[in-house]
Amino acid sequence: MRWSQSYIPTLREEPVEAEIASHRLMLRAGFIRKLSAGVYTYLPLGQKTLSRVVTILKEEMDRAGAQQVLLPALQPIDLWKRTGRDVVMGQEMIRFKDRHGKEMALGPTHEEVITNLVVGELRSYKQLPINLYQIQTKFRDEPRPRFGVIRSSEFIMKDGYSFDRDEKSLDQSYQAMYKAYEKIFERCGLPAIAVEAETGAMGGSDSHEFMVPAKHGEDTVVRCPCGYAASKPRAVMAEDKSKASKDKEKPMEVVKTPGVHTVEKVAQFLKAKPTQLIKTILYLADENPVAALVRGDHDVNESKLQKVLEVETLLMADPGTIQKVTGAPVGFTGPVGLKGVKTIADPAVLSVKNMVVGANQAEAHGINVNTPRDFKPDQVADIRFVVEGDKCTKCSKALELQPAIEVGHIFKLGTKYSSRLGATFLDEDGKQKPFIMGCYGIGVTRILAAVVESLNDKDGIQWPVEVAPYQVDVVPLNVQHAAPLKEAEILYDALQKAGVSVILDDRDERAGVKLKDADLIGFPYRVLVSEKSLKQGQFELKNRKTGQVDMVPKEGAVEALLQAVQA
Amino acid sequence: MRWSQSYIPTLREEPVEAEIASHRLMLRAGFIRKLSAGVYTYLPLGQKTLSRVVTILKEEMDRAGAQQVLLPALQPIDLWKRTGRDVVMGQEMIRFKDRHGKEMALGPTHEEVITNLVVGELRSYKQLPINLYQIQTKFRDEPRPRFGVIRSSEFIMKDGYSFDRDEKSLDQSYQAMYKAYEKIFERCGLPAIAVEAETGAMGGSDSHEFMVPAKHGEDTVVRCPCGYAASKPRAVMAEDKSKASKDKEKPMEVVKTPGVHTVEKVAQFLKAKPTQLIKTILYLADENPVAALVRGDHDVNESKLQKVLEVETLLMADPGTIQKVTGAPVGFTGPVGLKGVKTIADPAVLSVKNMVVGANQAEAHGINVNTPRDFKPDQVADIRFVVEGDKCTKCSKALELQPAIEVGHIFKLGTKYSSRLGATFLDEDGKQKPFIMGCYGIGVTRILAAVVESLNDKDGIQWPVEVAPYQVDVVPLNVQHAAPLKEAEILYDALQKAGVSVILDDRDERAGVKLKDADLIGFPYRVLVSEKSLKQGQFELKNRKTGQVDMVPKEGAVEALLQAVQA
Repeated sequence: MRWSQSYIPTLREEPVEAEIASHRLMLRAGFIRKLSAGVYTYLPLGQKTLSRVVTILKEEMDRAGAQQVLLPALQPIDLWKRTGRDVVMGQEMIRFKDRHGKEMALGPTHEEVITNLVVGELRSYKQLPINLYQIQTKFRDEPRPRFGVIRSSEFIMKDGYSFDRDEKSLDQSYQAMYKAYEKIFERCGLPAIAVEAETGAMGGSDSHEFMVPAKHGEDTVVRCPCGYAASKPRAVMAEDKSKASKDKEKPMEVVKTPGVHTVEKVAQFLKAKPTQLIKTILYLADENPVAALVRGDHDVNESKLQKVLEVETLLMADPGTIQKVTGAPVGFTGPVGLKGVKTIADPAVLSVKNMVVGANQAEAHGINVNTPRDFKPDQVADIRFVVEGDKCTKCSKALELQPAIEVGHIFKLGTKYSSRLGATFLDEDGKQKPFIMGCYGIGVTRILAAVVESLNDKDGIQWPVEVAPYQVDVVPLNVQHAAPLKEAEILYDALQKAGVSVILDDRDERAGVKLKDADLIGFPYRVLVSEKSLKQGQFELKNRKTGQVDMVPKEGAVEALLQAVQA
Repeated sequence: MRWSQSYIPTLREEPVEAEIASHRLMLRAGFIRKLSAGVYTYLPLGQKTLSRVVTILKEEMDRAGAQQVLLPALQPIDLWKRTGRDVVMGQEMIRFKDRHGKEMALGPTHEEVITNLVVGELRSYKQLPINLYQIQTKFRDEPRPRFGVIRSSEFIMKDGYSFDRDEKSLDQSYQAMYKAYEKIFERCGLPAIAVEAETGAMGGSDSHEFMVPAKHGEDTVVRCPCGYAASKPRAVMAEDKSKASKDKEKPMEVVKTPGVHTVEKVAQFLKAKPTQLIKTILYLADENPVAALVRGDHDVNESKLQKVLEVETLLMADPGTIQKVTGAPVGFTGPVGLKGVKTIADPAVLSVKNMVVGANQAEAHGINVNTPRDFKPDQVADIRFVVEGDKCTKCSKALELQPAIEVGHIFKLGTKYSSRLGATFLDEDGKQKPFIMGCYGIGVTRILAAVVESLNDKDGIQWPVEVAPYQVDVVPLNVQHAAPLKEAEILYDALQKAGVSVILDDRDERAGVKLKDADLIGFPYRVLVSEKSLKQGQFELKNRKTGQVDMVPKEGAVEALLQAVQA
């Protein structure tokens, strides 16, 4: 492509709305433009990069034996009602009524549609395993769209679904996808790590997230030098017995704490350590009240809590329920004397002596509370998030917390969808059985942002060769100079013939503008053709990633570039 | 691909919901499945065919100098209000409010978004012309989705938009797209013809539709052997003076016609010819009443009427307005004595003597009405649709009406969108001017149906080589026979290496099932490998289109197939 005929609107100014590097650079380098909150247009360079990622995805999915389909974005709500996910999806799922009054949704994901698709058509164990995937636009009404295409309301996903006859076969399907994902991210130049993950709204058993460490990642990865890696909701920690307090138990008292409401302020007011405070959070678990107890410096992990409780729904109790159950307003719930409520405590709570807890009275706390003397939790279980300093369950080393961008997520769904939607097959033993399913997602548009977030410097983006919009930028320094322009044209033609994706910067612009744009957009290789270098029969070749500049003889330039882009 | 590992659910039964061949065959051959009214899933074969069409589209668009982008489906209604098309689009545009209460639409088309995109970024005449296109999913809430993917509520379009500095340059952009479209349809194997068309909701001046003649096409093409071709709303006819009645004018009378309401019944009751009846239809044109008069055997063409009247909106008058304006209920409007209403008559009306018209009284008609004696239209203009028997304006031969499927539509938009959305550029003369725009659409998913509708026989589809899901189907007659299976595998591998897209029917099924499926799906070439043919060192090669069966020597099979698919 000739730059003079391309639509590449680069920006000199820093876009004020962009908070992180990838968002800022994708705007400045002319890859995307915002239409509305969380809704973006992909300009020619953005679209080219997208199509490179799509090519990688298709190749690796095909190689792994998956078959491409295309499922609709428009979906009847009735189908979502059959799995109960019309409620689970809440406001995130965009809904409308069509002109005939039929309730429709815009697909935020496609488990229901794909499972419904195979009902009655995928019939025999002989047809299994089958793995179907699509590369398609998803819609989610994000409460806070941000970071450009990292969290947007309209985005492209590669989502795949496997159908197996048993767990062993699912394991194989899952492993094949795991490996394909590793290969995909590697080809995209992304340092993605696979971490154990929660299944969340998808349901099912095993799950892994593929995370790219990034300073401004919205997610957090918990890692140990020993190799353990998990998402923050999933991560577990060793119980640290050494921390158990040896203090003497003092007599329990109730003290007034008027107008003192945060953990820090209560601790200060009562001259206690924050770790002595115990937070008691009241939930409705499948509509029954449950009190969750964690130490003041910890937070309740609702995924863990829900799993421990084995319930379908878990909601924070509303102020009315709290008043009714505890007899006190919000902020004063405590475990002592709490009736008709299941109490569940994190193990770290038990190591605390002379706790400070809510007194189940307005503006009052209990102090010097001890267990089992003053209260005895119904259950003790890990219900909190890992914090910095927690120890690994495998090797006891300190766990590290690292921000990251989630780029892929794979799940073993089991029979959650197939059994609810009646998707069964006839097994060898003559019995109808529900399919054992897996699902596999990659945020296609988000990959672009993750690459840019991982690979950039102060001058711009550093595209890896496989996903760059163009691999080589040929720049005649000054198009008013006939000889360099002619040589640049010859090189441009030769590279195109050799199958290299190349842009010719034939703009009548100052050299500074052209070189700045080249760095900003971040083509992996830039060839500068000037009168000066031509006198030596050479071009100047710059590697954007390393910054290395080499003079290459004119004659060997095509070969040198071919080698470079194929390396 | 091996058939045994593919998801190709062919159906033995005729699907009852399918009214036309393409819909029936795409269901039966396992290309599509219906999720909801007008909403379809593309199964692996459908997706493969789609991707072949997409490849052709990209190649031809790139060749024509257009650049691919990707615009959002989610669009703020505010943008549509700025061009007034939020009203024009009516119920066809799907609308919803997001969680923050913002009014959003699902893009039925993208003139507003693309024009808004370039505002302030495409600034100088030096950057022009620019042609941006996308291949993207559109949403339209169809009142009567039908014929499978021919008229659906979610479909893929290739839509492109050109920005030029003047009309001459727009002509060139338009011609380049016209030629690219001809090439695209030719490569898809579609006998598409370009016809003059109306601009409709898009606005603008020139327009062409690309139509594929088809027995069950929803559109109608008007053609003359001389080469004239137009869409039905656009088509014009010569005024046929020879048909003017020579009858003597009789005295006008008003007669009661109780309970007689259709053209046929009134004519019968009054012993008049249907051509003597004159229909008078009352409209509100930009809110002013207008009476349109056409002969009883003709129909009002609202596109023509709107253009003649030069109005923004044209609506049929409601019963209340009719009563108020004519003093009579619906069905008895007539031109005689009509006050405060502009009357406009089709030329064919003037050739009628002793007309029958509504009497502007309930259950009564005027007979022996003559012009200019009894009424005089304010304007005479072509405001009707062509009917069979009308004559060509260019050569006076009889026009033919032919059903067809619209697969492409190109428009000269002019400055309609650029001027309303403030999209201007600085021209060489130092003046800010609105872009002169064109827009170019192809129904990508509809192309599949048009191909199937055009190319099928009683046994199934006959895919052209360039868009077939697989070009060659290699069929070992019986996979229990080791030698043919082995030879089939060798051929399959060799064809893959040679770059031919090939499927190996390695299913343990009866030969009849395999051969029926091959014909139903319609792979262009089928190679049968049996013990019998192998004895002669031969394969049996069948051309699906011609039905011709040839024996080819084993050794030359790859070469023969390569030649066939490249022919």
